[in-house]
Amino acid sequence: MRITAGWQSLDPSSNALTRVTIERRELREDDIAVRIDYCGVCHSDLHRIRGMLGEKDLVPGHEATGVVVATGREVTGFAVGERVAIGTIIDSCGECAMCLAGQENYCYDRPTTTYGGTDRIDGTVTKGAYSREYVLREKFAFHLPDQLDAAAAAPLMCAGVSVWEPLRAAGVGPGSRVAIAGLGGLGHLAVRLAAAFGAEVTVLSRSTAKAQDARALGAAGLLVTTDDAQVAAARGSFDFILDTISADHDLTPLIGMLGLDGTLCVLGNPLLAGPKLWELGAGRKKLTSSGTGGLRQTAEMLEFCASHGITADVETLPSGRIETALNRLAAGDVHYRFVLDMSDLDQ
Amino acid sequence: MRITAGWQSLDPSSNALTRVTIERRELREDDIAVRIDYCGVCHSDLHRIRGMLGEKDLVPGHEATGVVVATGREVTGFAVGERVAIGTIIDSCGECAMCLAGQENYCYDRPTTTYGGTDRIDGTVTKGAYSREYVLREKFAFHLPDQLDAAAAAPLMCAGVSVWEPLRAAGVGPGSRVAIAGLGGLGHLAVRLAAAFGAEVTVLSRSTAKAQDARALGAAGLLVTTDDAQVAAARGSFDFILDTISADHDLTPLIGMLGLDGTLCVLGNPLLAGPKLWELGAGRKKLTSSGTGGLRQTAEMLEFCASHGITADVETLPSGRIETALNRLAAGDVHYRFVLDMSDLDQ
Repeated sequence: MRITAGWQSLDPSSNALTRVTIERRELREDDIAVRIDYCGVCHSDLHRIRGMLGEKDLVPGHEATGVVVATGREVTGFAVGERVAIGTIIDSCGECAMCLAGQENYCYDRPTTTYGGTDRIDGTVTKGAYSREYVLREKFAFHLPDQLDAAAAAPLMCAGVSVWEPLRAAGVGPGSRVAIAGLGGLGHLAVRLAAAFGAEVTVLSRSTAKAQDARALGAAGLLVTTDDAQVAAARGSFDFILDTISADHDLTPLIGMLGLDGTLCVLGNPLLAGPKLWELGAGRKKLTSSGTGGLRQTAEMLEFCASHGITADVETLPSGRIETALNRLAAGDVHYRFVLDMSDLDQ
Repeated sequence: MRITAGWQSLDPSSNALTRVTIERRELREDDIAVRIDYCGVCHSDLHRIRGMLGEKDLVPGHEATGVVVATGREVTGFAVGERVAIGTIIDSCGECAMCLAGQENYCYDRPTTTYGGTDRIDGTVTKGAYSREYVLREKFAFHLPDQLDAAAAAPLMCAGVSVWEPLRAAGVGPGSRVAIAGLGGLGHLAVRLAAAFGAEVTVLSRSTAKAQDARALGAAGLLVTTDDAQVAAARGSFDFILDTISADHDLTPLIGMLGLDGTLCVLGNPLLAGPKLWELGAGRKKLTSSGTGGLRQTAEMLEFCASHGITADVETLPSGRIETALNRLAAGDVHYRFVLDMSDLDQ
């Protein structure tokens, strides 16, 4: 076994994690070992630490960047010393229609998640990247492009690809009228990507507080969703709305702002229920959602971000301050993603 | 006023309509008067007669064909003696984004429906085509192509265009894997149209009873939705599912049969609620609905049906037998659309 350190949730009523010793498997033939330098703090980490999925004793973390420190005998794609990125999944069946389509995130036999999943060979529960070392199949690791800052790129691996795929699936590009509802970890990357695709982007927010940020990220403007007159005036204004709001909220005003054949993609709160069908029927509107990314599109996203200089706006904290990061994330006090610096685990 | 006869619902607890005298307006400059020869019996007629929308004293009927008998002074598109078809809407604002897009059915100022609507000029409640004469603006009337049988074409005006538009919006064509759930008035026309577009069509039905019909209509096969093994084996099999089932039902098995980026369009029961968003997220599936058709696509649909020999399978009854038609429709005893022959109103 390989020994490393990490942060584990031992009490679902608390955001305080415990520093623990973690065993990683000896490298299989196609494995690489990665020294984790940075790991983003995803909203889903917070939910899962607090028991949303009924899990316990989690070592969270699925937005990681680092450096290869060892390679299995048959590894051909990575060498020791190369920069690496790790996302939300680390294995899949490789044989189903979804895997064959490059959407391993939708594997019919369940993708193996980076933490809280079940290893397909030894059956152990996977422990995430809130740790100093991670071991995974090279197939599920990504080269981190040289142009990208390792800390600011970490959130691309979940938040980034989670908005990339639905924007791509909707064909967002020049001429698209796009709205991004909610300006947080996902939302701020969605604004950057949609603007880079050439779309006209509007941020939907409860107040004007983020108007300056919205423009700085590339949006043409901000619409205040608590102002009924603004919402009414925007009837039919958007071809695509990406809803990244994690709190419970009403989808009806968003549907009303879609134009003919427009699409509302709800990412922030997958537990929301859809509206009655007649709401969609008035204008042939589409409701959809999406779940992180597959290997092919994750690699494409990283290349695109490298060539367009896109990363997340991050606040980097030593990993020992994870409780602070989670508390502030729960309070919405983050612009726009916390990233943990794992080097303090060496001490 | 012009005097004609028709059938009115005076008791929402009954499917028995009452023969009444109906006044139609004197022709405005852009009006035509149409002798109604045939009118289809739509499932929505049944629902609305029974008070689903809280209406009373309805004269139903919005799938009509007939012949022009008089024209207003400025009518240029129709002449006395020409064949005409009338659908679900007879006016709209003409100025909003939906009207300008040729989707008057989604008019932001509410389209004027063929019955139970409010005339935009005199404010009277519109009375439908379960009558011998109808008066409407020529803009909202359609030329009935010579190739189409007047009785069998009547259901194209609601059932036909209601399935045409979502099939077109989804880009159904050669290579599309399409399923039609429910084989009734809408479903049987959806099978014919999707097959004519070049798609591979599967009918989804509760039993094998309609397998022969499905093939005769152009389907490649029938999948029994009460057979869990068949449903499981069909996971990810369809790009587009058109759900024409009017009874309450669970959307989850249908969503499971959609492939990556597939679309489920629910037409038969607009009061159904959508699933939780995560159900759509597993494979980026889209949920949508649709509401009848606009002028442009209705005209295109009629031309397509004329050139491909597509009409509804109908059972034609004298209009005096409307109660029988409604009772049998409520019992699901129709293959696949009742059409009323209005000539008995001359007696």
